[in-house]
Amino acid sequence: MKIVLDAFGGDHAPLAVLEGVALARQEFTDIDFILTGDETQIKQVAAEHSISLEKVEIVNAPLVMPVCAEPSAIRKEYKDSSLAVALRILAEGKADAYVGAGSTGAIVFGATFIVKRLKGVKRLALAPVMPGDEAPFMLLDVGANADCRPEMLVQFGMMGAAYMDKVMGVKNPKIGLVNIGAEESKGSMMYQEAHQLFKKADFNFVGNVEPRYVLANQADVIVADGFTGNVILKLTEGVAKTFSKGIKGCFTGFTGKLGGLLVLKKFKAFKKKMDYTEHGGAVLLGCSKPVIKAHGSSNGKAFKNAIWQAYRCTKNDVIGQIADSLAQMDTKNTEEVS
Amino acid sequence: MKIVLDAFGGDHAPLAVLEGVALARQEFTDIDFILTGDETQIKQVAAEHSISLEKVEIVNAPLVMPVCAEPSAIRKEYKDSSLAVALRILAEGKADAYVGAGSTGAIVFGATFIVKRLKGVKRLALAPVMPGDEAPFMLLDVGANADCRPEMLVQFGMMGAAYMDKVMGVKNPKIGLVNIGAEESKGSMMYQEAHQLFKKADFNFVGNVEPRYVLANQADVIVADGFTGNVILKLTEGVAKTFSKGIKGCFTGFTGKLGGLLVLKKFKAFKKKMDYTEHGGAVLLGCSKPVIKAHGSSNGKAFKNAIWQAYRCTKNDVIGQIADSLAQMDTKNTEEVS
Repeated sequence: MKIVLDAFGGDHAPLAVLEGVALARQEFTDIDFILTGDETQIKQVAAEHSISLEKVEIVNAPLVMPVCAEPSAIRKEYKDSSLAVALRILAEGKADAYVGAGSTGAIVFGATFIVKRLKGVKRLALAPVMPGDEAPFMLLDVGANADCRPEMLVQFGMMGAAYMDKVMGVKNPKIGLVNIGAEESKGSMMYQEAHQLFKKADFNFVGNVEPRYVLANQADVIVADGFTGNVILKLTEGVAKTFSKGIKGCFTGFTGKLGGLLVLKKFKAFKKKMDYTEHGGAVLLGCSKPVIKAHGSSNGKAFKNAIWQAYRCTKNDVIGQIADSLAQMDTKNTEEVS
Repeated sequence: MKIVLDAFGGDHAPLAVLEGVALARQEFTDIDFILTGDETQIKQVAAEHSISLEKVEIVNAPLVMPVCAEPSAIRKEYKDSSLAVALRILAEGKADAYVGAGSTGAIVFGATFIVKRLKGVKRLALAPVMPGDEAPFMLLDVGANADCRPEMLVQFGMMGAAYMDKVMGVKNPKIGLVNIGAEESKGSMMYQEAHQLFKKADFNFVGNVEPRYVLANQADVIVADGFTGNVILKLTEGVAKTFSKGIKGCFTGFTGKLGGLLVLKKFKAFKKKMDYTEHGGAVLLGCSKPVIKAHGSSNGKAFKNAIWQAYRCTKNDVIGQIADSLAQMDTKNTEEVS
């Protein structure tokens, strides 16, 4: 299997990418890597940190697409950037999956217009796996589409189900719809319509999930429009940060520090459980090939987890599963209409 | 000043309401109270808990409107409920402000159709004051309107500004608009349009507030549509609960308990800071009289804080301030059109 990585995406590139590759190479012996970016710099950083480049092919692409650039620039002034080159390698079939921590907007744009969507997919959805109270769950869309129509949400649910089944091993995953009340009459007009479509859809719909229960594992896949999904993802991070800061403040002074020492081990375990990089990055569901968007602040371990995701997606053919489900949905709709 | 309370709203009614009145009576000597509900029961609970009924008038209304009832039933089968009677007392000018923890939907409906909106107000907004990292801030709307138009959000901002100024003493409050990016081109079409209107509005607009910074005090008033606002409010509670539970779990076992004892005082201070009942309930902004919706799980202290809110709203004439701002806005718009 071949995985292509944009070596210059993310805050700690290219070192974190190289570290991720080194970690992944130990765990998955059947992966070959392609790194795109400034070849001289990649080789230099690898040498400085004694990271071997075994099983790594480098495709020289010195231009870096900045995070602030317009996404559409990936087809114009940044068409030779490490990001664009990596996506082209994927599109041309020279790699099986892509992993990178570049700008979300550019990756969504590039996945749509360079790698292309699966036939029948209305919109790509950005879908991270998040840590819940008891188990991880998938939330989508978290920002690829700020305005959604109800039928887009149904596709999101179906694609999320395929991912949780094939990659996370959750059989017959439970699909929930974010809403501000449990009753089907609750929420905006769009969510009320979506609820009706979800009831008829060919997946295990468990009803509305209220925001206060988002982390409570009521569903394995939680569907939202991209605006609401982004609010949920980012607010969760924000509140977690406020709490972490507040709690850290309790462990100051002599007694505080002593108290901290006594609970250190358990705190670390809790922190690991709530670490959203444990399950990799966000998948761009609906794309014709596996595209994984790693978090901008990814370290080596986070990149390794994103590579694991790309590996599982490829090995278990998530794309094929989504294509099949789309075809079935299409047949069903045609039958209903005729 | 006279404040009317629905004695049978909330999970711990009527005891918590009576306790709230007792606490408030000590602090604000110029308030007289009207309690609506089953007179026999109120007197019995007061006697059992040795709570004096000094300065308390009871209006007998034995019917209780259940939380699950349709909001519009407040004008039909529940028109004689403790909630409806309390709102009518307010509407008829026999009290200056209302406080109650009944069903949100019914209170919004009752405030709109029994107490009535201020002239020119498009929609009432449910507006709680939330604890931020450094200071409290107002978030609105948190659920009175699941579908909003951009011009409604502008009114929300203006009304929130009046509240923060008059009740919380924040001069020239900063108004922010929730959005999934800082740039004005970000977010759904509705939010993009709202951003343009906010830029022209006659208040201190500080731009978009990203979800991860909602608690970071970038603004004194954060405006959202009711769907998104409700997601923010409830998700914050949910994530806080997950963290509280996770942290509590760290303080088990011998060393854990010992560690907990050492940081107990600081933890309590942090918990108090993050307690959303510290600043009272949610105000129904846009109503022609002060209507405070207390949290369903309110205890005596939470009711006392909600009474404090009603007291400040009345004493500092928040309604008058909102009416003035609306009139100014109206004049400005008329001038712009002509």
